[in-house]
Amino acid sequence: MAQIMQTESIFNHVNGGTAEMFDWEFDPTAVLAEPVPLVVTDNGGIHEIVEEKIAETERGIVLGKNVHTTCLTVTEPEANGEFSGDKEAYMAGVLARFRETMMERTQHHLGYPFNLDLDYSALAPLQHFSINNLGDPFIESNYGVHSRQFEIGVLDWFARLWEIEKNEFWGYITNGGTEGNLHGILVGREVLPNGILYTSTDSHYSIFKAARMYRMECVKVDCLTSGEIDYADFKAKLLQNKDKPAIINVNIGTTVKGAVDDLDLVIQILEESGFKQDRFYIHCDGALFGLMMPFVKNAPKITFKKPIGSVSVSGHKFIGCPMPCGVQITRMEHINVLSRNVEYISSRDATITGSRNGHSPIFLWYTLSRKGYKGLQKEVQKCLRDAHYLKDRLRDAGISAMLNELSSTVVFERPQDEVFVRKWQLACQGNIAHIIVLPNVTTNKLDDFLYELVEKRSTWYQNGKVQPPCIAANIGSENCCCVLHK
Amino acid sequence: MAQIMQTESIFNHVNGGTAEMFDWEFDPTAVLAEPVPLVVTDNGGIHEIVEEKIAETERGIVLGKNVHTTCLTVTEPEANGEFSGDKEAYMAGVLARFRETMMERTQHHLGYPFNLDLDYSALAPLQHFSINNLGDPFIESNYGVHSRQFEIGVLDWFARLWEIEKNEFWGYITNGGTEGNLHGILVGREVLPNGILYTSTDSHYSIFKAARMYRMECVKVDCLTSGEIDYADFKAKLLQNKDKPAIINVNIGTTVKGAVDDLDLVIQILEESGFKQDRFYIHCDGALFGLMMPFVKNAPKITFKKPIGSVSVSGHKFIGCPMPCGVQITRMEHINVLSRNVEYISSRDATITGSRNGHSPIFLWYTLSRKGYKGLQKEVQKCLRDAHYLKDRLRDAGISAMLNELSSTVVFERPQDEVFVRKWQLACQGNIAHIIVLPNVTTNKLDDFLYELVEKRSTWYQNGKVQPPCIAANIGSENCCCVLHK
Repeated sequence: MAQIMQTESIFNHVNGGTAEMFDWEFDPTAVLAEPVPLVVTDNGGIHEIVEEKIAETERGIVLGKNVHTTCLTVTEPEANGEFSGDKEAYMAGVLARFRETMMERTQHHLGYPFNLDLDYSALAPLQHFSINNLGDPFIESNYGVHSRQFEIGVLDWFARLWEIEKNEFWGYITNGGTEGNLHGILVGREVLPNGILYTSTDSHYSIFKAARMYRMECVKVDCLTSGEIDYADFKAKLLQNKDKPAIINVNIGTTVKGAVDDLDLVIQILEESGFKQDRFYIHCDGALFGLMMPFVKNAPKITFKKPIGSVSVSGHKFIGCPMPCGVQITRMEHINVLSRNVEYISSRDATITGSRNGHSPIFLWYTLSRKGYKGLQKEVQKCLRDAHYLKDRLRDAGISAMLNELSSTVVFERPQDEVFVRKWQLACQGNIAHIIVLPNVTTNKLDDFLYELVEKRSTWYQNGKVQPPCIAANIGSENCCCVLHK
Repeated sequence: MAQIMQTESIFNHVNGGTAEMFDWEFDPTAVLAEPVPLVVTDNGGIHEIVEEKIAETERGIVLGKNVHTTCLTVTEPEANGEFSGDKEAYMAGVLARFRETMMERTQHHLGYPFNLDLDYSALAPLQHFSINNLGDPFIESNYGVHSRQFEIGVLDWFARLWEIEKNEFWGYITNGGTEGNLHGILVGREVLPNGILYTSTDSHYSIFKAARMYRMECVKVDCLTSGEIDYADFKAKLLQNKDKPAIINVNIGTTVKGAVDDLDLVIQILEESGFKQDRFYIHCDGALFGLMMPFVKNAPKITFKKPIGSVSVSGHKFIGCPMPCGVQITRMEHINVLSRNVEYISSRDATITGSRNGHSPIFLWYTLSRKGYKGLQKEVQKCLRDAHYLKDRLRDAGISAMLNELSSTVVFERPQDEVFVRKWQLACQGNIAHIIVLPNVTTNKLDDFLYELVEKRSTWYQNGKVQPPCIAANIGSENCCCVLHK
C-alpha cells in the first residue's frame, strides 16, 4: 500500500486559499488526509511512505493549512537531453507502484458512487488517438478524429429511455454530473432570464455553484428527514415569489442519502401555485439514480412526456466509465433560445466545454451495447437487493441505518476510527456515513466490511464510556439505534 | 476510408436547434458535412458508406437542417439477455473499422491545433481504473482512486514556467482550453464584480460564452490585421469606461491567426489610462502558444511577476494528450476571494467541473517528464522552422500566405475544393484557411500537401476565368498574391 514520491516533493503545499472554507454539504473533496504522508526510507530516489497517525488529529480540515504532502515532481531528462535508461526505469517504477495503489484502493472502495467493475480492454487500441468531439455533436466539423457517431448513438439511447423523439431533443456527452447540472441550469436561465432557482438543501453543490456563476437568485428549500425536498416548504416559498418564474432542480438521488424528489408532486405543486408551463423550468439532476430509476418497478418515471426541461446523469457512476463523464439531454426548443444570441457569443456551440473528450462516448456506447437494458436492469435489481441486505445486517448488529425506498445508498452511523473510514473510503458528513451499493460492490465485500465494522465497534464502545452517536435527526428515530432510540 | 453505421441509424438527426446560428468566429465545429454519409451496400448488418458529393452543395450550414447522418446505434444484446458471439464480432468490427478511420484521419491532419504524435503505451495498464480527482487538487479526499500527486507535480512544473511560488498559486488540470478560460474569467469577475470584460474580436469564442454565462458586460475590441488586439481601440474603449474596473482577456495565440497580444503594452495602456492594479484583472488565454512562447527567444514573457491574474493552456494541443485537457493557474489570493461565499455555494471546490478526469494529469506528467524543458524547446524550434518553410513555399508558388512572428500558424488562401479541405482537415473562415505546425506535422507531410495544393490550384484557376481570391483584408496586402497585389 506504499505510495511514492520524490525528495523535492515533500513540499508542504500550503495552498490555504481554500482553507477558509468549511461547512460544505458532503463535498467529496472533504475532510481527511490520505493514508500516505511522511517519508520514511530512501529507496533509490523513491521514498516509501507510511501512514501518518492522523486518526489522533482533529477531524475536519485545518484552517489555513490544507497541506498537500504527496506530489510527483516532473523532473528534467539527463543533462545531455536524451532520455536515459535510469529515468526510464524510474518512471516505469512510479507507474507500476501507482498501478498497485490503484488496485488496492479500488478493492477497498465503498463510499463513492463509482462503479469500478470494468473490462474495457477491447478499447485499448483507441487510447492513443487524440479523439475530440469539438462543440455541438449534431454539427459537422472538418476535424476528422472524432467519435460523434458513437456519441449520437448513446444520446439516442438515452432519448429513448427518457421518452423524447429524436428530432425533439438536443444533448451531448459531458465531463460529468456537474457539467450536466451547469448546462441544465443555464438552459433554464436562458429560457426564463429572471427566474428564481429553487433547490433543496441536500442538492449537489454544483447546483449552488451554478447559481453563483450565473448570477441567479437562489432559494434553498428545506429537506425532509429522508433527504427529499420538503414539499410544504417548497410550496410556501413558491407562493412568496409568485411574481417571478421558477427554475427547479429536482434531485433524482441526492448525494448523501440517495433521496429521490417526487417529480409528479413537484409539478402538481407548481400548478397548484399558479405556475403555468411557460413560467417554470425543471432540471432533473439524475447523476446517480437517473440511470437506475427507469429499471425500478413502481418508481416515479423520469420522462419528457412530463413538463421537464432537462435531465442529466453521470456515466462514471452506475455505468462505470473510467473517466468522469455524463449525459445531458434537453429539448431542442430550449437550445433554440440559447442560440438566439449567437451574434453575441460568436458561436453556435451550445455546450459548456467546447472541445470534448471523444473517448468517453466510445466507453458509454461499448457498455450500453454490451449490457443492454436487460443487463442494466439485472444490475439495478442486484444493487437494490444488496443494499437491503446491508441495511438489514447493520440493523441486526444494532447499528443505526437508513435506506430510502428507491435507493441503493445505505446511510449509517459514522465509524469512530478515521483509519477505518479511509480504508473503506467512506464519504462522511457529521455523524453519518454512507455506502452506495453499485454492481462492483459484492456481497463478499459487504460481509468483509460488516465483519470488520462490528469487530471494531466492540472496541470503540467497549467500556460503555463512549456511546454510539444518536443520528435520529439525520435518519429518523425509527432508524436510530442509539441508547435513546433503540 | 469507409465508415460504418447501422440501418436504423440512417435517421436524419434534424436537430436544427443550433441551425439558426451562423456567422461564428472560426468555430471549429463548422461548415462542412463529413465525408461519410449515405448508405450504399448492406454487408451483414453493417453498411458501407461512400462519399456523398457534397462538394457541389452550397458551402456553409443549411439553416434549420443540420443533418447528422452518422450514428452508431446502441443495440440490445440477444433476446436471451446473453452476450452472443455475433454481437461480439459485430462490435469488434465496428471498433476495428473505427480505428482504421482514426488512423487515416490522423494521418491527414493539418488544420487543427492537436499534436497527434503520441506514444503512451506505458500508460495502458492504468486505462481501466476509474481515476477521479474530485474537486480541489490541494484538498485531500477519502476517495482513494485519484492521481492528485501527478496533478500537483504538473501544476508545480507550470508554476515554475510562469514564475509563481508554490505557496502563492492555485490551479488545477482542466478538461481543456475552454474550461481554463471559463475559470479565469470567473475569477476575474469574483475579484472585480462590476468589472467590464475587454477582449479582441479574434478571441476564442469561449471568452464570449463566459461573458454571457456570467452576465458580464463585454466590450469587443478591434483587431489589427495580424490578429493582435488593436491597442489604440483598446485604450479608447478603456477611457470611455473609466468608472468601472477592467477584466482583460489577453490572447497568447489567437485561434485563427496565431496572433499574440502584447502583454506589456496592454499593462502599459492600463496604467496610462489610470487603472491601478487593484482595478484590473488580466487573464491570459494561452491555449496553444502559452506553452510554446516560453521557448521562443525574444518573445514577450508570460510571468506572474507581471500583474496578471491567471494563465491557461491546453494539454491536448502542443503537448498532445489524447483527450482534451488543460492547465489553469491563478493566484491563491484570488481563490480566497472566490471562497468567501462558501456558505452560499456550499462547497470549497473552486474548480468548474468538480469530478475531474484523473487520467489526463498522468498523461501530462508522463509527457513533461519524458521531454523536459529542453525537449519541448527543440520541438518548438522545429515547429517555427517548419512553419516558415511552409509559408515560404506557399509564397514561392504565388499563394497568399501570412505567418505571425511568434507563431507556427500559417494563414493562407482558402482552397476552392471542399473535398481537398476535408481531406486535410483544414479549418477555414471566409476566404482564409490555416495550418498549425505542431511536432507531428513533418516536412514530408507539408511537402505532400504543398504538391497536391499546387496541382489542384492549376485546375481550379486553369482558364483564368476564376481568380484566386484577394485576402489582403485578412492578411495584409504585403502578404497577398492576388492579381491586384502580386
